[in-house]
Amino acid sequence: MTLQKLQRALQRKKIDALLISQPDNRRYLSGYTATDSSITESSGFLLIPARGSSFLFTDSRFELHAASEAKDFEIVLYPKGLLALLQKILPKLKISRLGFESHYTLHSTAEKLSSLCNKLDIEVIPLVGLVEKMRARKTQEEIDKIEKSVLLNETVFQEIFPLIQPGMTERAVASRLENCMLEKGAERPSFETIVAGGPNGASPHAVPGNRPLQKGEPIVIDMGLILDGYCSDMTRTVVLGTPDARTVKLFRLVRKAQLAATSAIRAGITGREADKAARDIINSGGFGKNFGHGLGHGVGLAVHEGPALNKRNKKKLQTGMIITVEPGIYLPDWGGIRLENMGVVEEKGCRILNRDTTFLDL
Amino acid sequence: MTLQKLQRALQRKKIDALLISQPDNRRYLSGYTATDSSITESSGFLLIPARGSSFLFTDSRFELHAASEAKDFEIVLYPKGLLALLQKILPKLKISRLGFESHYTLHSTAEKLSSLCNKLDIEVIPLVGLVEKMRARKTQEEIDKIEKSVLLNETVFQEIFPLIQPGMTERAVASRLENCMLEKGAERPSFETIVAGGPNGASPHAVPGNRPLQKGEPIVIDMGLILDGYCSDMTRTVVLGTPDARTVKLFRLVRKAQLAATSAIRAGITGREADKAARDIINSGGFGKNFGHGLGHGVGLAVHEGPALNKRNKKKLQTGMIITVEPGIYLPDWGGIRLENMGVVEEKGCRILNRDTTFLDL
Repeated sequence: MTLQKLQRALQRKKIDALLISQPDNRRYLSGYTATDSSITESSGFLLIPARGSSFLFTDSRFELHAASEAKDFEIVLYPKGLLALLQKILPKLKISRLGFESHYTLHSTAEKLSSLCNKLDIEVIPLVGLVEKMRARKTQEEIDKIEKSVLLNETVFQEIFPLIQPGMTERAVASRLENCMLEKGAERPSFETIVAGGPNGASPHAVPGNRPLQKGEPIVIDMGLILDGYCSDMTRTVVLGTPDARTVKLFRLVRKAQLAATSAIRAGITGREADKAARDIINSGGFGKNFGHGLGHGVGLAVHEGPALNKRNKKKLQTGMIITVEPGIYLPDWGGIRLENMGVVEEKGCRILNRDTTFLDL
Repeated sequence: MTLQKLQRALQRKKIDALLISQPDNRRYLSGYTATDSSITESSGFLLIPARGSSFLFTDSRFELHAASEAKDFEIVLYPKGLLALLQKILPKLKISRLGFESHYTLHSTAEKLSSLCNKLDIEVIPLVGLVEKMRARKTQEEIDKIEKSVLLNETVFQEIFPLIQPGMTERAVASRLENCMLEKGAERPSFETIVAGGPNGASPHAVPGNRPLQKGEPIVIDMGLILDGYCSDMTRTVVLGTPDARTVKLFRLVRKAQLAATSAIRAGITGREADKAARDIINSGGFGKNFGHGLGHGVGLAVHEGPALNKRNKKKLQTGMIITVEPGIYLPDWGGIRLENMGVVEEKGCRILNRDTTFLDL
């Protein structure tokens, strides 16, 4: 289905075939779940002609894996590398305009591809984000998978949270959370789990360290996992013992901003407007300068994908998009408060996928 | 030292400064240990002028980390992104020829860099593998670090191997191995640990699954870790219980190929000749078609780096290179046998770094 949609897009652009190198796009279109350890160690490429059947190119190490998953694709091996295979196959398929993913192809590879295509009298067209744009709107099947990922992530949080004691290090808590994810069947964490107590929480992307967690301080826990390919992403800020008045005040302001944005989000408003709904609340509380990142981002096969909910995105949200709603306030030397849920953009609103309410409504 | 060597290379090439984007090269030159979760999420870039002091560009999340490690570098933040910073800093430094790493820069990024430099009247020079070439020959300090990584990896294997029982899943064994790496102080596994029993072993890069391991079948365990930045990589094929005659025969053939290659390797022979030494043995045993990958690869800050030991590499090996020697035989539906050690290329031979002999000499 998605494949046909992409083929129609290629026909409109008069591109005879598109070479897919981005691993999430590869999985999205083919079902082939192999991951790439880096851009220089690919476990395969797709060639999607504008018409007719599609190919998965890989090497012998991945042949069986690819064949068992990418049922609609013809698997072709490249014992002498991708370019040698393209040299043989592109003329056979009578390709005269070949698209490639400019945003996930190395400059050196693009140069070699250009020079090969030059010899074959094929025009090379750099494309950016064509499949990513399709991925931003999820099918019901994808939404169901993401919801399961969200709920498993919450189960992990709820199982480990009661075990967190003052004196445990951030790193120990992060490691317990990640082990629990794997035990419960996650493929892996969707990003490096953040556990940031007190002052460390002032950095939105804190790395867990050996600092022991203290009673009374805000502790930011930002965690996610991958289940059946799909990511979850949730942040809770918790306190061991009783939060002080300042913490409670900031908590309530961040939660108010989160609820305001959740109420505002629906198909048709822009990413910028969604961001503004939360930002206005935090500005009016006097902490606008302490909310230094955007409100949220899309989530799917990648933990960060389109659409962006921030000041720069003037495009409208569409039904089926899955986004995070994660306002925060960060005070240097003191710490941070961030609350993050995930929701589905619907015609008339935003359906939040999270059920966990730990410390949300202090 | 390495920095001065690179600067001399830039002077010879009449390049005023080199922009480093490849994370292992960044660490090699600066000591800054941050990793990048992917090419699209960089934790920093280096700018190495041909003369004078060097810069590390990053964002506020990594400022303290960078400053604490990259002592010889001036840390500069890019709140508006790398390109906006380059626009300000390149003219100040009077750069008129700027090199960049063509093999680790996205085509779309290179396009933006070109158009910026065009406006600034700066010539952009794509370079490939300049620092990688330096990295392929290790210093004694690096060799010592790699040897420690190899030995720790063996300690992990030897601790977990006796605990493996028929009925345990591949995934459970892989997870025990990886947890043990972390407990013993590894930064992380150097790649996703492979545990592949029976038919799964027929795929050289099998992903551990939920299949229970069986008595008598060959089980391929390919594992490595990172210690103090440097990788190890080792494969053992083991059997729970008694191997049958076929298994023993294939084991001995693979081991014979490994020993033949190890004897052949020394400074001055080519990667192709090293590969041939092993391949000739496996060919003569009648299994040439079942050895579908190259003999080995370099190992260092990256688990796969130069030099390649395969049919295509006609360059000579040099002293100080560290390589894997890993022939294998793969029979669809039956399984695989692969044996992998790491060694240092020396003037008169190959010094194997491994000491573990588990199941090597059946």
